[in-house]
Amino acid sequence: MSLVDTAVHRSEAPPESGWSAVFPVETAHAASMRGEHAVVLATRHAGERHVTLRYELQGTRGAPVVFVAGGISAHRHLATNAADASAGWLEGLVAGGRTLDPAQVRLLSFDFVGADGMLDAPIDTGDQADAIAALLDALGIACLHAFVGYSYGALVGLQFAARHGDRLQRLVAISGAHRAHPYAAAWRALQRQTVALGQLQCAEIQGLSLARQFAMLSYRTPEEFAARFDAPSEVVNGRVRVAAEDYLDAAGARYVAHTPVTAWLRLSESIDLHRVDPHDIEVPTTVVAVEGDRIVPLSDAVTLLEGLGPNGQLRVLRSPYGHDAFLKETDRIDALLAAALRAPTSGEPA
Amino acid sequence: MSLVDTAVHRSEAPPESGWSAVFPVETAHAASMRGEHAVVLATRHAGERHVTLRYELQGTRGAPVVFVAGGISAHRHLATNAADASAGWLEGLVAGGRTLDPAQVRLLSFDFVGADGMLDAPIDTGDQADAIAALLDALGIACLHAFVGYSYGALVGLQFAARHGDRLQRLVAISGAHRAHPYAAAWRALQRQTVALGQLQCAEIQGLSLARQFAMLSYRTPEEFAARFDAPSEVVNGRVRVAAEDYLDAAGARYVAHTPVTAWLRLSESIDLHRVDPHDIEVPTTVVAVEGDRIVPLSDAVTLLEGLGPNGQLRVLRSPYGHDAFLKETDRIDALLAAALRAPTSGEPA
Repeated sequence: MSLVDTAVHRSEAPPESGWSAVFPVETAHAASMRGEHAVVLATRHAGERHVTLRYELQGTRGAPVVFVAGGISAHRHLATNAADASAGWLEGLVAGGRTLDPAQVRLLSFDFVGADGMLDAPIDTGDQADAIAALLDALGIACLHAFVGYSYGALVGLQFAARHGDRLQRLVAISGAHRAHPYAAAWRALQRQTVALGQLQCAEIQGLSLARQFAMLSYRTPEEFAARFDAPSEVVNGRVRVAAEDYLDAAGARYVAHTPVTAWLRLSESIDLHRVDPHDIEVPTTVVAVEGDRIVPLSDAVTLLEGLGPNGQLRVLRSPYGHDAFLKETDRIDALLAAALRAPTSGEPA
Repeated sequence: MSLVDTAVHRSEAPPESGWSAVFPVETAHAASMRGEHAVVLATRHAGERHVTLRYELQGTRGAPVVFVAGGISAHRHLATNAADASAGWLEGLVAGGRTLDPAQVRLLSFDFVGADGMLDAPIDTGDQADAIAALLDALGIACLHAFVGYSYGALVGLQFAARHGDRLQRLVAISGAHRAHPYAAAWRALQRQTVALGQLQCAEIQGLSLARQFAMLSYRTPEEFAARFDAPSEVVNGRVRVAAEDYLDAAGARYVAHTPVTAWLRLSESIDLHRVDPHDIEVPTTVVAVEGDRIVPLSDAVTLLEGLGPNGQLRVLRSPYGHDAFLKETDRIDALLAAALRAPTSGEPA
């Protein structure tokens, strides 16, 4: 295994070198780094594969390490930091004063295996969990204080807890359960077929854009659409155009601009290969479900909880944002994270 | 206007001619006919259009006439009758002993305008209602005892009540409301784009098949899929295949075999052009909503009811079949129809 850190110089430079003059004081005691690490991963469906693990680590040195993983479109850059000043995908929850405050915890994240589009083979959530274990080895991290996983990240977190439970003190699994629900799986399968329809004729980008738009419907709720798009349909050039169509079009176009088709296909498949026996999880686990989530129904969260037994607890949110509530209901999610991450577990001081 | 009846000879032949010897006694007093009728329809978005209205009429001569209309894939053939012995799409509800018993009522139905794929222009539910009024003129039917509409047929029924209320004594609108819900409209718009993606490259049949499969997900519920397709996904030829995929594939293939692409596109659009002001409806109306319907949410049925004021009443079903409950929960629907159709309205004897 080789460890190839990039951008380490600047972000890991000590405050003495003028670092604190460039960055605000409240982040001066935090260290951020991005790196990548080549490993051979024994995948569960496609044999041994050479993959590159790209990670980002931010927050106070020596603080408890929290691994954070999001949906299949998420990546290693959670929030603005010294290694990358651009906005991250979890800006609302990774910030001073939040539970995931880089001054209090050290946040580790990575690009999912396959997210670079270089691995055109079936990947599953167990592979992702094994890749994270390899990353921890490389970084010399014996044990995570917590794994916070949302959506696909929750599936990976459940796998990590089942397969590498000795390296994890607590899991927060948000909007993800022990299996892909059959209805949601069917929805995703049709999205993949939309891409395949486009690929028939070199229109795979249009196919992916359309697939993404179908996926967005599964992430959101009728309540939100009713509030935002309550205008009559119009006839434009002899065709009917509905009120949400411009919004969805634009969202699809933005998505395809930064998503390799192969990455999307393989990560979408990976959700549908997901299955964990909750009885294999002995790590204290907080399951967070959103009532109204159209792809991870509350009923599956309840089944997961039953399987977890005394290791599990369930928190239910009601939100017009459905599956996307984690990204929208930041205050409520932050409060849930505070309760979950600050609770002592056996083996830790209270 | 010209009236072109087909298959009238055999089905309209009087019992004296040996008819009762060929068909079971219980249908001998009923007369069935199929016909077609060419009209010029003043459409609301595409000017005057020559269209052919294809209807079927079955049941006892002189009995009260009930117009029955279903989803965009439904057609004039409701049930086996003397004019067409093949099974119809509403066999479970049009039968002896049911509320829609051909021995008790005379059932009228038609192929929706555009269903033959010959009208490539925007059609809306108001056009369909006007076409039905023209059909009643041609058949010499002054007034309908009832209009029973399900899904798209409910939208057409609401338009008929608003535009031709003097020709209707009561309406039963099942799984349809006064508007296309913005979320459902977005879902349909993406289905139409799936067809367009296929049409890019002469793969419109694959596009329609896939669009139909997406539509099926909107008609059904996660509960039904969980019960039917609770098997793990599999890797087949390097690709992930989910449990429901064979079922959906087969359903899509069956659908495209009898659905012209243009018909589907224009009728799908027609749903999204639908909008009725409930205050324009003065006909006694029973609204039937299904809790769990993913494209016609209960909230819209409630809004419709509020607009109907004293003319409206609401019945709510809970069913794992969602939008398709009308076709599956035949006993419960029949009971609702019995209550709605047998209740006296002002101007009728009790």
